[in-house]
Amino acid sequence: MEKIKIAVCGYGNLGRGVEAAVGISPDMELAAIFTRREPSSVIPLTADVPVLPFSDIAGYSGKIDVVVNCGGSATDLPVTTPAIAALFNTVDSYDNHSMIPRHFEAVDAAASGSGHVAAISVGWDPGLFSVARLYMNAALPEGKDYTFWGRGVSQGHSDAVRRIPGVVDARQYTVPVPKALERVRKGENPDLTAGQKHTREVFAVAEPGADRAAIEESIKTMPAYFADYDTTVTFISAEEMKRDHSGIPHGGCVIRNGMTGGGAKHTAEFSLKLESNPEFTGSVLAAYARAVHRLSLRGESGAFTVFDIPPVLLSPESPEYLRAHLL
Amino acid sequence: MEKIKIAVCGYGNLGRGVEAAVGISPDMELAAIFTRREPSSVIPLTADVPVLPFSDIAGYSGKIDVVVNCGGSATDLPVTTPAIAALFNTVDSYDNHSMIPRHFEAVDAAASGSGHVAAISVGWDPGLFSVARLYMNAALPEGKDYTFWGRGVSQGHSDAVRRIPGVVDARQYTVPVPKALERVRKGENPDLTAGQKHTREVFAVAEPGADRAAIEESIKTMPAYFADYDTTVTFISAEEMKRDHSGIPHGGCVIRNGMTGGGAKHTAEFSLKLESNPEFTGSVLAAYARAVHRLSLRGESGAFTVFDIPPVLLSPESPEYLRAHLL
Repeated sequence: MEKIKIAVCGYGNLGRGVEAAVGISPDMELAAIFTRREPSSVIPLTADVPVLPFSDIAGYSGKIDVVVNCGGSATDLPVTTPAIAALFNTVDSYDNHSMIPRHFEAVDAAASGSGHVAAISVGWDPGLFSVARLYMNAALPEGKDYTFWGRGVSQGHSDAVRRIPGVVDARQYTVPVPKALERVRKGENPDLTAGQKHTREVFAVAEPGADRAAIEESIKTMPAYFADYDTTVTFISAEEMKRDHSGIPHGGCVIRNGMTGGGAKHTAEFSLKLESNPEFTGSVLAAYARAVHRLSLRGESGAFTVFDIPPVLLSPESPEYLRAHLL
Repeated sequence: MEKIKIAVCGYGNLGRGVEAAVGISPDMELAAIFTRREPSSVIPLTADVPVLPFSDIAGYSGKIDVVVNCGGSATDLPVTTPAIAALFNTVDSYDNHSMIPRHFEAVDAAASGSGHVAAISVGWDPGLFSVARLYMNAALPEGKDYTFWGRGVSQGHSDAVRRIPGVVDARQYTVPVPKALERVRKGENPDLTAGQKHTREVFAVAEPGADRAAIEESIKTMPAYFADYDTTVTFISAEEMKRDHSGIPHGGCVIRNGMTGGGAKHTAEFSLKLESNPEFTGSVLAAYARAVHRLSLRGESGAFTVFDIPPVLLSPESPEYLRAHLL
């Protein structure tokens, strides 16, 4: 069997997560890594994988089955995913929920025009959590959804703290409020503000002599990021940061409480507990790269989301095997 | 918009569950109930729905969009689903896991031959639990699956107790062993026998003067059903049975502990807590009836399982709405 040729575009934590997933997938091989950095500065985990400048990617058209685009959602993916979809089948993890419809349109135009398949917003939220919400809503059309995130590292919030003068390094954990989670699981269907659902724990390394009280105040009053939450700030040493906070765990849960037509009440929940957010997300991206390749072989084109893709296409196993063993 | 015309075939608890789900679905209408009983003896919940003899079903070909087949898996569905698929689009809840491949083949032959779409083994297990297993296996190809059922009523085990001489009525609850569940959730990946995963609680009404000790012994030593489990038997009155055990709750969870290519460990879990098993299962069947109708409109035919059906087809909402609100 010929292996699916995967290229990783962008070699940060997520790119390495995809690389690791491809490495344990019997039906895939990592054919190339594209980077904006100086290629000689990038040392892949996989032996003998060519590291190539992103600017050369067009020259590899026809030699790669699926490009997994591991750029950031803020400024990178809105530009690079349509550009890549004009040349390759592709998957990205675009996670700016409110802008997904616009991103979908742009990628769909590029992929439809070039006859390629592009899956956007793949990962766990958006991604597996979205799929869980859809199945739960279909089974329980009358009800209420809740999504809790954490305990886990929010990269965006950690970065926001790092930008405060006097902060050398920071890590921010998003933590669900246990009482809120308990009320939802009991089916009480409470109305909860963002701050009633989650608290924020910040660990920061301050410059020697920095005004810690001022830093703490800056964090706790930061609009949108922290002001609406119960936030705790703990100053630690650079050694403690390295020792206790070098992982990137995350997770959370989607819960729907609903009622069926006869009046019976039901609760559905999907939860994830992840030791490494980028490794897990990379693994989901690799599975969807498989689906994208198969959709392309069927002659499909255009933009897809996790909602459009039949689960059977994600597995390396045959439909017969899956019916016999997982159904 | 023209509503999807649904027929329910078989009017027991599950048939009434489907009827209730159709009743709250804005895009569906219940067009007919087919029954093997004397039609005049069946009083539907929905006003003005024709109740028709099952033997007349062929005459309604072309007048029904999807027949939801609510028969039993043991002897009914293996015969009736292929027969119905030769005339209609259909959905069933065939749940004999080990025989699914054979059922799929028979239904696929009938549905392909007639140009209809037939979704088999729809519900929650098989069904939503199967889908959860597939997504989890795709995201975590190296790992171990666990499925726990309950606390909930097992109809098969309740029936088995009722067949014991001297038993007037019985209800059997399947209960997960908390310690086993806890070890799995902690990621310990224990090897567990059936009896280490679940206990069985039996509530029985005995005939006056019956030998209760003998009944209890018959239950606890019944091969396959109870012998391998820690089983408790409680004798209650007919009034207590009616008061405390007239519901049909169920639920359970699917858990997968897995490792990604870089060595990080992860746990995924999907769980259901259902006040009424047949009402929830009926609601899932109704959602898949919608998908079957849409697949048929696309010109598809043959047998499908939950693995083959893109989640987007289950929802009455448009793909645009779903991308904007659930993704």
